[in-house]
Order: sequence, then structure tokens, then C-alpha cells
Amino acid sequence: MTSSNIRVNLPQNSYDIAIAPGSLSQLGNSLSELNIGKKVLLVSNSTIFKHYGEQTINSLQDAGFEACYHLIPAGERHKTPASIRKLYDTALKNRLERSSTLIALGGGVIGDMTGFAAATWLRGINFVQVPTSLLAMVDAAIGGKTGVNHPRGKNLIGAFHQPKRVLIDPQVLTTLPAREFRAGMAEVIKYGVIWDTELFERLEAAKRLDSLRYVDPELLQTILARSVQAKADVVSKDEKEAGLRAILNYGHTIGHGVESLTGYRLVNHGEAVGIGMVVAGELAAAMEMWQPDEAQRQNALIEKTGLPTQIPSMLTARAIADSLKNDKKVKAGKVRFILPTHIGSVTITDDVNPDILHEVLQKNIQKTP
Amino acid sequence: MTSSNIRVNLPQNSYDIAIAPGSLSQLGNSLSELNIGKKVLLVSNSTIFKHYGEQTINSLQDAGFEACYHLIPAGERHKTPASIRKLYDTALKNRLERSSTLIALGGGVIGDMTGFAAATWLRGINFVQVPTSLLAMVDAAIGGKTGVNHPRGKNLIGAFHQPKRVLIDPQVLTTLPAREFRAGMAEVIKYGVIWDTELFERLEAAKRLDSLRYVDPELLQTILARSVQAKADVVSKDEKEAGLRAILNYGHTIGHGVESLTGYRLVNHGEAVGIGMVVAGELAAAMEMWQPDEAQRQNALIEKTGLPTQIPSMLTARAIADSLKNDKKVKAGKVRFILPTHIGSVTITDDVNPDILHEVLQKNIQKTP
Repeated sequence: MTSSNIRVNLPQNSYDIAIAPGSLSQLGNSLSELNIGKKVLLVSNSTIFKHYGEQTINSLQDAGFEACYHLIPAGERHKTPASIRKLYDTALKNRLERSSTLIALGGGVIGDMTGFAAATWLRGINFVQVPTSLLAMVDAAIGGKTGVNHPRGKNLIGAFHQPKRVLIDPQVLTTLPAREFRAGMAEVIKYGVIWDTELFERLEAAKRLDSLRYVDPELLQTILARSVQAKADVVSKDEKEAGLRAILNYGHTIGHGVESLTGYRLVNHGEAVGIGMVVAGELAAAMEMWQPDEAQRQNALIEKTGLPTQIPSMLTARAIADSLKNDKKVKAGKVRFILPTHIGSVTITDDVNPDILHEVLQKNIQKTP
Repeated sequence: MTSSNIRVNLPQNSYDIAIAPGSLSQLGNSLSELNIGKKVLLVSNSTIFKHYGEQTINSLQDAGFEACYHLIPAGERHKTPASIRKLYDTALKNRLERSSTLIALGGGVIGDMTGFAAATWLRGINFVQVPTSLLAMVDAAIGGKTGVNHPRGKNLIGAFHQPKRVLIDPQVLTTLPAREFRAGMAEVIKYGVIWDTELFERLEAAKRLDSLRYVDPELLQTILARSVQAKADVVSKDEKEAGLRAILNYGHTIGHGVESLTGYRLVNHGEAVGIGMVVAGELAAAMEMWQPDEAQRQNALIEKTGLPTQIPSMLTARAIADSLKNDKKVKAGKVRFILPTHIGSVTITDDVNPDILHEVLQKNIQKTP
């Protein structure tokens, strides 16, 4: 089967992302190539660990690592400083050293927390990402953004800390719930809109995208490799989000508002991004920056994955507009929007008329039947 | 009066350290030279803020900054994740942005905590160090080590995050308690032993060193400039402590043990380092790595500053030896020691005979009268 290796080039701490079916069972050997100590702490949640914990620990031990593990309850609501404190306690109990390594085996929540713990334990130890959700594979696991939520906002507490390696095994997606698969597809579509016209067109050509079972292994490898390449390209050009990297937040400005106002429960991250892309696309069309037919093609693709496209009916346009002011991307008090100009290309602007924003938000709130 | 400007050269994020009498009142102008946003949050404790808060805030406002402040109770026991959470809340309330700046006005505790909050809020914002204790001026404020304590160990939770600038005004030392001045002198003597023979000899030539009032402004400027230069040299060569930087921990291996076993209260950091240097020096002499007469000269200098030289009588050699295993500097289970070979030069070794260590520790425990 096809496999891909993609490099993230950075001034310091460059690293490789391997995408290869069956690679999970080779994790130990893969880590042996890195210059790291013998102690590794695997971080996961019980659902993932039940599926893949034993094989992962065995692979690490067979390669000569001293492996221990720490489980965090599943779900965004556990992405808190309190969970990090428990992880510190496990690190202390197992006497992790500066040369030791945390391994994140899980989705974005596990990856973000493990990375943040690695960034802040002993002033920074190694970490490796083994993403198990589509969303984490194409987005969260790459680029070194780590963090936890503050009661008042997502990822407000965090650090940049690059992994030493990212290992993606597409076969683990077979145990991913369908809703999680669709959530990951939101980020894949995002790369099509902001960066990769060909990826967008390959997705358009697919008959169905609402479940992994309609995606053949070749298309899956293309989806993963092109998405990861897009992310790696952008991060290599702008590691710390001084400029360009902000385009990765396409759909996320509104998306974060929808997520936080619904308590991170009703709508998951990918669904929020899908909704955010619909709103951002219609905003760009309303501002005559984007052809309405291209916005329509984007929305049709989002619908084809089975993602929601409308803001939940209990939210108001005003509440969402207000929530944007707490966004990390606010600069000199102004909210920055990422808006498409063509499929494969976006622009960054803080010059959005509040009335037009209000109107577009209003139009995209789900009507109660 | 003399002033000095010392550069810390790093692959990314190089910065300047200014040492100039009266410079505190020029803080606002100094920050105007940096490419930072208008919002600044001054972090201090109430003792320091009473002395210097108003003039600092005025200087910032006069230079056009929007300045707010946050006070943390004084003392090492407040150097905790809980204090950082309160600081995050102030940052949120004042809507700090990624271009905003935290300013640490205080000693090492304030500097370490402010730096850690800056490292982890919005994945890293600017910070500036304005150290007000001798210890912070010559050590803690330089080099980007930030962090808080874990109940089981000092600075176990932390990150590397370099300041944008360090501003040292020697005049603020006039309000520093005598015991704190002596604590800072421990780090100054450390630079003499590990790096700068001339600094060591200048200190030996001084008649008294046990209080600032015996130190004339010229000697004070020399003490500050040569110490800061030593630290800047070492940090420039090894930012993340891959090797050389570990020499700055001379006296700290035993010192941290003494501090933590006495609950960070009985003995302050500088005093612990002074005791740690006496033990490390005698260990080096016992291992025939260092001439006993040079060890004696070091101990005489420590005594001249009025610092304690003996381990508090309630501690045992065994308890201290055990405590070393939790040290961040442990590598593959072995404790690393920094041991002098000549005045101005040290070596790093993990090959210390436990029996000799025990004997030297035993010998240096204070005898109850």
C-alpha cells in the first residue's frame, strides 16, 4: 500500500510526518530512530486505549523502551488545567527525565493536552503525536499548537511545542465513529478552500463522503497526504502564526464562537468549523470578494460529508458577534476574518462591516420547524 | 554614572540587558523601542509595588502604553499553578492580545511566574523583566527559564520563554532587605567560581560584602555587569541547557535539596546555593579535583557576605542524598554534579561516590550547640 513521508521544515526542531497503513504496530521501531531517552509515557483515553493500547505498549517495549501510560477521560470538557496536573503527577511518579518522551495516542484533545504537558514539564520534554481521529491526523497533531481550555475560552492556555515525530496509521480510522469522521472532513475541505484546488476537486469528484466506508484506500491516502502537506507547507512558512498561518483558522473564528456558546457539547469542533466556513463563505460572497457559485460549491461539499451547515437555533447573531471579541486572533481590538477569494486561496481582513456580519449570521441560524 | 548594555545572542529572540542607575523611571521609553502592542500588564507584589508601582505605571502611561497591574502575594509559597490561574484571569479581564506584554517588576518569584504566564497565555505573549532583587538581576531574570513549583519539587512545571528586554536599575537595591542582598551575592560568587576569575578576585579584594552599604557604586556596577555578562555568555552558547548551561547549577543540586526539605521557608534560595557551593567545593576537594586552598578561598568569600555555610541541623545526609533523585538534572537515573577544578572553571560529572558524598554532607551539617 502507498505510504507518504512529509517534512515540516522549521528554523529549529524540524520533524517528519509518516502516513502509512499498519504503521501503529511499528511505533517502537520508528521512535528508535529518534535521539530520545528510554522512558516513554503513553497518554490516551480509555476508548482509544482499549482498541490500541496493548499493541502500542508492546511495540514500545519490544523496541527497548520503558513504557508506562496515563489515561484521561474522553471529551473536550476534560481539556483543563486539572487534567494536566494529574498528568504531571504521573510524570513525577514515573520519574520522567528531560530526555523522556510523552506519546499522545488519541484525537485532538489528547494531543493538545499531551503536548502542553510536554511543553511545561521540566521546562519542555519530547513528545510524539500518534493521532487516531481524522481531525487530529490532518490538523491538530501537526504544527506544535498545544493547550487546554480556560472556562472563558478555548485553548487560551497553551504553548507552541513541536512534536519530534507524527505517525499516522490510516487503518485506525476504521474504529472512528462516523460523526468524528465527518468532523475531520471539515478540516480536509478547509485545506481545499484555502490552499489546494486539486484536493477540492478530488473531493467534489467523489460520489459519497459521509462515511469512511465510501472512501477507498487510495482516496483516503490522497486526503491525508494532501491535507498534511498543506498544513506542513503553511507551518513551515510561519511557525508561530506571525501572519500566513492565520489562514488555517478559516472557518474557526465563527466556529469557536458556536462551540463555546454551546458549551463545547452540542456541536463538535469539526461541525463548528463546517458551520464557520459556510458563514465565512457567505460573508465573503456578500462582500463581493468571492463568486457566489464557488461559495455554493463549498457548501455543497460540506453537505455531501453530512456535516451541519446551519448555526444551532438557540444561538443569536448578537451572542456570536460578541463572543468573537474573546478570540485569540483579536488584534488591536479588531476581529480578523479569513475569507476566500477563489477555491484554493483566501485573504485575511479585519475590515468587516458589522451589519453585513449580523445579516449573514442571522440568515444562517437554523430555523426551528 | 556608568551604565552597561549586554546582549544575549540566540538563534531566535536575542535581546538586550540594560544596567543603568535611575533607569526604572525610563521604562516606558525603553519599551517604546520594542515592536510590541499598546497593552501592558505589570505583575508585582505589594511590597515592591508600594515602592516602585506608581513611578513604573506613570512611566508606561507617559510613553503611551495602556497599563494595568496584577499583584501576587510575596513569597516562594505563592509560586504555584493557582497563582498563575489568577494571573490568567486578569489577562482575560483586561483583554490582553498576542501583541500585549507582561512586565515582571520584582524578584525571582515574580519573574519566574510572570514569564511562565507569558509563555502559556495565548500560546506565548511578550514579556519584559524588571528585576528588583540582586538575585533576580544577576540570575533569574536572564535566560528565559520560567516556571512554578510542584508540591513535590521546585520549578518542575515551567517553560523556556525569553524576555524581550531586561532592565536593571541598581538604585532599587537600596530598598532590598539585607538578607536578600546576601542571597544575591551567593549567585555572584558562583559566577566567580564557575566562569570569571577576575570577578572572584575583585570580590576577594573588597573589605566587606555583607551589606549593600559597604559596596560602592562602581563595585556594584562591576558586580552586576560581570555577573550578567557571565550568564549571558553561557545562555548564548546553550539556550536550552543541552550541555554547558548546566554549569549555572553549581551549588544548586544540593541547594535545591536543602530548600525543598526545609519547605522553602527556613533557608532562602541564595542561602541554599551558598551552602550547596560549600558542599560541592568540599566534594571536589575530597575527590582531589580541586585544590583545598581554593575551596577554602571560596568558603571564606561566602562567609564574608554573611551567608550561612552549613546545612541546617534538622536535616540528615541521607534525606538530602535521597532528595537529589527528584532533581530535574537527573539523567538516566544518575545525579549530575557541577564541581570546580580551578577558580573560574568547573566540570560536570555524574560519577560521584555515594560514600564520599555522604561523608561530605555529614561533615557540613550544622552542629547543634
